[in-house]
Amino acid sequence: MNIKDVSFERERPDVCGDAHPKALLRAIQEDGDYLLKIANQHIVSADQFSREGMRQLFRLAAKYEANPRRFSTPLQGKILISAFYEPSTRTRLSFESAWHRLGGDIMSITDRSTTGIAKGECLADVAEMFNNYGDCVVLRDNNEDSLHEMMDCLRIPIINAGNGVDEHPTQALADMYAIFKWRPDLVTDSKDKQKIRIGIIGVPNKMRTVRSFLKCLVQFSDAVSEVVIIHDEAVADSLFGNNQREQLERAGINVSTSNDLDKTLPSLDVVYINAISWEGDSFNTYGKAFHLTAASPLKSDAIILHPLARGEELSTDLDHTHHNWYFSQARGAVFLRMALLTCMVQRAERVIDVV
Amino acid sequence: MNIKDVSFERERPDVCGDAHPKALLRAIQEDGDYLLKIANQHIVSADQFSREGMRQLFRLAAKYEANPRRFSTPLQGKILISAFYEPSTRTRLSFESAWHRLGGDIMSITDRSTTGIAKGECLADVAEMFNNYGDCVVLRDNNEDSLHEMMDCLRIPIINAGNGVDEHPTQALADMYAIFKWRPDLVTDSKDKQKIRIGIIGVPNKMRTVRSFLKCLVQFSDAVSEVVIIHDEAVADSLFGNNQREQLERAGINVSTSNDLDKTLPSLDVVYINAISWEGDSFNTYGKAFHLTAASPLKSDAIILHPLARGEELSTDLDHTHHNWYFSQARGAVFLRMALLTCMVQRAERVIDVV
Amino acid sequence: MNIKDVSFERERPDVCGDAHPKALLRAIQEDGDYLLKIANQHIVSADQFSREGMRQLFRLAAKYEANPRRFSTPLQGKILISAFYEPSTRTRLSFESAWHRLGGDIMSITDRSTTGIAKGECLADVAEMFNNYGDCVVLRDNNEDSLHEMMDCLRIPIINAGNGVDEHPTQALADMYAIFKWRPDLVTDSKDKQKIRIGIIGVPNKMRTVRSFLKCLVQFSDAVSEVVIIHDEAVADSLFGNNQREQLERAGINVSTSNDLDKTLPSLDVVYINAISWEGDSFNTYGKAFHLTAASPLKSDAIILHPLARGEELSTDLDHTHHNWYFSQARGAVFLRMALLTCMVQRAERVIDVV
Repeated sequence: MNIKDVSFERERPDVCGDAHPKALLRAIQEDGDYLLKIANQHIVSADQFSREGMRQLFRLAAKYEANPRRFSTPLQGKILISAFYEPSTRTRLSFESAWHRLGGDIMSITDRSTTGIAKGECLADVAEMFNNYGDCVVLRDNNEDSLHEMMDCLRIPIINAGNGVDEHPTQALADMYAIFKWRPDLVTDSKDKQKIRIGIIGVPNKMRTVRSFLKCLVQFSDAVSEVVIIHDEAVADSLFGNNQREQLERAGINVSTSNDLDKTLPSLDVVYINAISWEGDSFNTYGKAFHLTAASPLKSDAIILHPLARGEELSTDLDHTHHNWYFSQARGAVFLRMALLTCMVQRAERVIDVV
Repeated sequence: MNIKDVSFERERPDVCGDAHPKALLRAIQEDGDYLLKIANQHIVSADQFSREGMRQLFRLAAKYEANPRRFSTPLQGKILISAFYEPSTRTRLSFESAWHRLGGDIMSITDRSTTGIAKGECLADVAEMFNNYGDCVVLRDNNEDSLHEMMDCLRIPIINAGNGVDEHPTQALADMYAIFKWRPDLVTDSKDKQKIRIGIIGVPNKMRTVRSFLKCLVQFSDAVSEVVIIHDEAVADSLFGNNQREQLERAGINVSTSNDLDKTLPSLDVVYINAISWEGDSFNTYGKAFHLTAASPLKSDAIILHPLARGEELSTDLDHTHHNWYFSQARGAVFLRMALLTCMVQRAERVIDVV
Repeated sequence: MNIKDVSFERERPDVCGDAHPKALLRAIQEDGDYLLKIANQHIVSADQFSREGMRQLFRLAAKYEANPRRFSTPLQGKILISAFYEPSTRTRLSFESAWHRLGGDIMSITDRSTTGIAKGECLADVAEMFNNYGDCVVLRDNNEDSLHEMMDCLRIPIINAGNGVDEHPTQALADMYAIFKWRPDLVTDSKDKQKIRIGIIGVPNKMRTVRSFLKCLVQFSDAVSEVVIIHDEAVADSLFGNNQREQLERAGINVSTSNDLDKTLPSLDVVYINAISWEGDSFNTYGKAFHLTAASPLKSDAIILHPLARGEELSTDLDHTHHNWYFSQARGAVFLRMALLTCMVQRAERVIDVV
């Protein structure tokens, strides 16, 4: 065996390098109060974040990403309860990696059948148990209501890591963080920034990632001129849920729809694509007709986001193009979660610059 | 979304507050020798604990509970093998939380089908493997004998976390700890304490939690005037196992039985209720006719204990009454296990006051 | 209950004691350069190790085993991704114990059905995810090619912990380490050492442990006079894979075959026995006619190795004889993996004597 066959490059740069998080860090002025306040909230919906609250989270995420080894112990002595009752590795490991990188310990539950819930234990009692066992809960459950049943009894914070078709707020924060890493000017209050046009290949009313993402956009309406939903004809009638479109429009963001991807692509700055929707115990795939490939008529400086895992909708021939910001998005999700988790367990004062 | 909807109170007091563990701590004089001696024992049965050994464990548990942040690293560098071959989250997380809170690392096995045992590996060989991999084993297995097969080959301590219908000694210690937190005078050697009457809704011969609990009571016969077993008529003939009733009576504790809950309740100081019995791969439910609710004719200062998870036998309308000591019992179980684990891996000298 | 029944001896000596690792440590002169170089390699095949590279790994393993408490934090802040898509406890816990003993944190995946792979995610994307989440990957997968698909996208090192019928290189290193602990003179360059004759009860072409072991032997041909493969008549035609026999013979090691165990045993110094071969989702058992027992005609000073878990092929009546080096082999595997992992995550300089 040739040693070359088994050697690898640690330093192969990310698609986007660390210049981007550094630039984002510089673009936002620290205001630690917003981070300190997060300590007393459960994270349920993207709705609950203010513009400035998000900006401060993105800043802390960028601080972590710009210098990944600077902080290694702010969560020392803290225990995460990682409860994934719906199959997931990507999100679970993203949270667990974030927690470990900050020096905390973890207890995982990866299967509902191994738990008391299988014996009919109510979620309020599970929450009461969690109060005694850990300092923070991350919950994924295909039942939308489980989160709320637990919340009522929790004296430690819980994070919604995907509850059925409802929301997935930390994914949306990571999506926004990727956009602002790409264009730090968009996160500022400057009046003369060039607004972007975002296309979403997906179904706002069926996909929790899209639902939460749209809610985040509302707070940054000064950066977004238009959102175009690209969809199958089949879902045209149920594309938007209650108030989804209205919330964007009230914020001053134009909303349009399209069922012709290639006609729409040339005008988009950000293309967000997702095909899977979690519904109950299973998932559905939408937009089978829509494929992004290196041959797609993308604007030359457009970026593609995808919450991953991907299927055929996103061709791997895009991976080595500069359109690929989905890998940066996935990487950034760890740092974004580090920022959020630090705040939630009352350790923000260990990492903010001025207290 | 209103931020109020997602805010929570960290400091909502426990049902019982920390005055109780502090009072218990004061009620017992430290004698570290008893704790040092635990290092060379497997924990198999509630029978193996002396009165003074238990008192010292309760004292250390109370020391931990009275000041949860005082000791965070006594188990640093120690590895727990958490082997739960029978479904469980509550007990597993209770042990794992206890271990993590003391700074140790954990390797979990939550499914027999992922192990060599599935390929027919004998437990003696598994034990031999464990000797090399960790510093302490916690085992739950529905086969009563697995524990003993492993013990013979272990050079590190093992804890029985429930072996079929046999025993669950750490649960029983946690039960006793809850009683003594409630009434610290009961743990003392004082001659003039007011004895309590304990009712047990359950089947001593079928329930491992009850079996272990009764064995603990034997050592505190000066605190217990009577044990009343409240049971279905259907199990009247097989209520007690070999020597169970005799052991209590020899210790001077009256034993009586009843099949009328509401008639018995008004005379009880402690009501211990459990409906589930683990038998082989499955479980049975007993006492379906017995329900405790806020309307039950409880003595005004009676407390209720339940090993949890609960079913319909224990109504949630009791949760916010002062009868609810089952939440305190569950919480205390973590601190009790912290005390026991510290001793078992030879780190008691790091936490006792005088060595 | 008698306390004697639950007491145990921590200090019951290993079959072989720590004199052996100490002697091995003395037999090899440190050359840290070889250890530093391992940092940029994936571990795929036993082929990739040079003689001196192996010697230095064995030396570091012996340093760890000779004084298990000397180094407890070289992996602090490092995260292991332990991905076992094929059932395993022994190998998984061996790696995880090695990592924890050096102070690192772990994220485990023990079931493919809980992962994105179940939804059709490609392994290249999983690898991309792993780049962001951890510092090292240990992979077991019954598909030989999974490892290679991941490698292409990884910027962190991956270790092959068994890929189908192909290889299991760290097991083979542990096997060699056991042999050299037993006879440290064999690892030296001395010209006048007494070569050993190794019998292998197994099928080189079907068993990954045997395949990797034979590749390691090639580098120590000065210590091995002959390898005898003891096999069922049924597999005679497919005993060796492409180049397996030739590679040994080119290195100057005689290769012979036998189907008569008891006739062959009296001439063997080392008897390596294994009955199970992993093939796809399942396993096959070979050599059902071959049993080693205390009554087998072993040379008086012969040692037995077995990768474990064992079945009927290896009788437990050998456990308390001095032929039993399989327990020492299993124990040593933890220290061998500690040595390898330390190097792979660029922490060798923390544990080598002279940098």
